[in-house]
Parts: sequence; C-alpha cells; structure tokens
Amino acid sequence: MADAEGHPTLAEMDLGRVLAALADPLRRRIVVLLAAEPEGGERPCGSFGLPVTKATRTHHFKVLREAGLIHQTDRGNSRTNRLRRAELEQRFPGLIALIEQEGLPVEA
Amino acid sequence: MADAEGHPTLAEMDLGRVLAALADPLRRRIVVLLAAEPEGGERPCGSFGLPVTKATRTHHFKVLREAGLIHQTDRGNSRTNRLRRAELEQRFPGLIALIEQEGLPVEA
Repeated sequence: MADAEGHPTLAEMDLGRVLAALADPLRRRIVVLLAAEPEGGERPCGSFGLPVTKATRTHHFKVLREAGLIHQTDRGNSRTNRLRRAELEQRFPGLIALIEQEGLPVEA
Repeated sequence: MADAEGHPTLAEMDLGRVLAALADPLRRRIVVLLAAEPEGGERPCGSFGLPVTKATRTHHFKVLREAGLIHQTDRGNSRTNRLRRAELEQRFPGLIALIEQEGLPVEA
C-alpha cells in the first residue's frame, strides 16, 4: 500500500499513470534533472527553474510522487526529491533512459 | 510536414504527445494488439473490441495517428491501422517493447 505521503509500492505503480505524469514537459524536466544527479541524489523543489507558481509546482511534484516516479522527504523547511530510479528500472525497463535521451524539454 | 491525413514525420513526433496518447488504457490496447501483428500487419478499427461508441473509437485512433503511433489507410468502406514500429523504434527506442511488456490493459 502507498505510504502516508502517497508513495506507491513497486507493484502499485501503474503504467498509464506514469505515462500521464511524463506527458507534461515540466514534469519531464524535473525527471531529467533528477536523473542527472548521482545515485540517490536529492534536490529541493525550488531548484528546478520551473516557470510556474508555487501551487502549480506543488501539484506537479504531487503527480510525480503519486505515480511513483519520485520520492519526497521533508527536510525541515524544505522538501527534497529523488528519482526512484532502481525501482522504475525494475518495473518499467528503459523508460527513464528514454526520457533522458530526449533531453530537457523546452520550457512551457 | 504531416501528410493530409495527419501522420507526422519522424522528426515531428513529440515525446509528450506520444506519452499522452499511450497514457490511455484503450489506446494502449490498440497498440499492444497491433504490435502482436506480423511486421506491417493491418487491422480494421472495428477489430479491437473497444467498449466505446464509434465516435469515441474514432477519437482514440485520431490521437494515436496524430502522435505518430499508427498509420491509417482507407480501404474502401473500412480503415485499417498498422503500428509505425520501425520509425517508433528509431525515434523512441524501447518504448513499444515497454508497452508490450505490460500486456493488454484491463478494459475500462
């Protein structure tokens, strides 16, 4: 079962939901930037250069988290994000590589 | 440039549009069934067992066609569909294999 913060287990990850999450260019930007981090690397929500309001930004991170693409951790007054890369590779082999290969989407 | 029927060229295919097209379980069903055909295999729109009205069905095929996933051909009183598999493999390597691996989505 998903935990209290809405992180799904591997078995709960749904391909349709993951694809819908990745269909958005700003969300792909977050994933591409997290994929460029060293294994387990975290970045705070404010570090992705997203040209949107804070509420919209929070929404995009929620979509990614609930699809299973990212793991979020509260760090006092900020929230950090890491890509669930190993789990994603196990559940959907090649998907993150495909997203990375396209590079950073042009900003909306 | 896309042709008169709205089939994009390889260069025009957009990852976001392709992912959005594949986020829908009925559209993934069409892709999985076409992927099971021999290379170049065609199927008419009515052969996919989609539990929707004809207008909705036509919409789903349009989304797939305009994203570049399928090629449609008019055959007199029916329209046939084939997966643009070789082109998709060139543009988005591994994507169709990933969709196939998940198998037929449960019908909506």
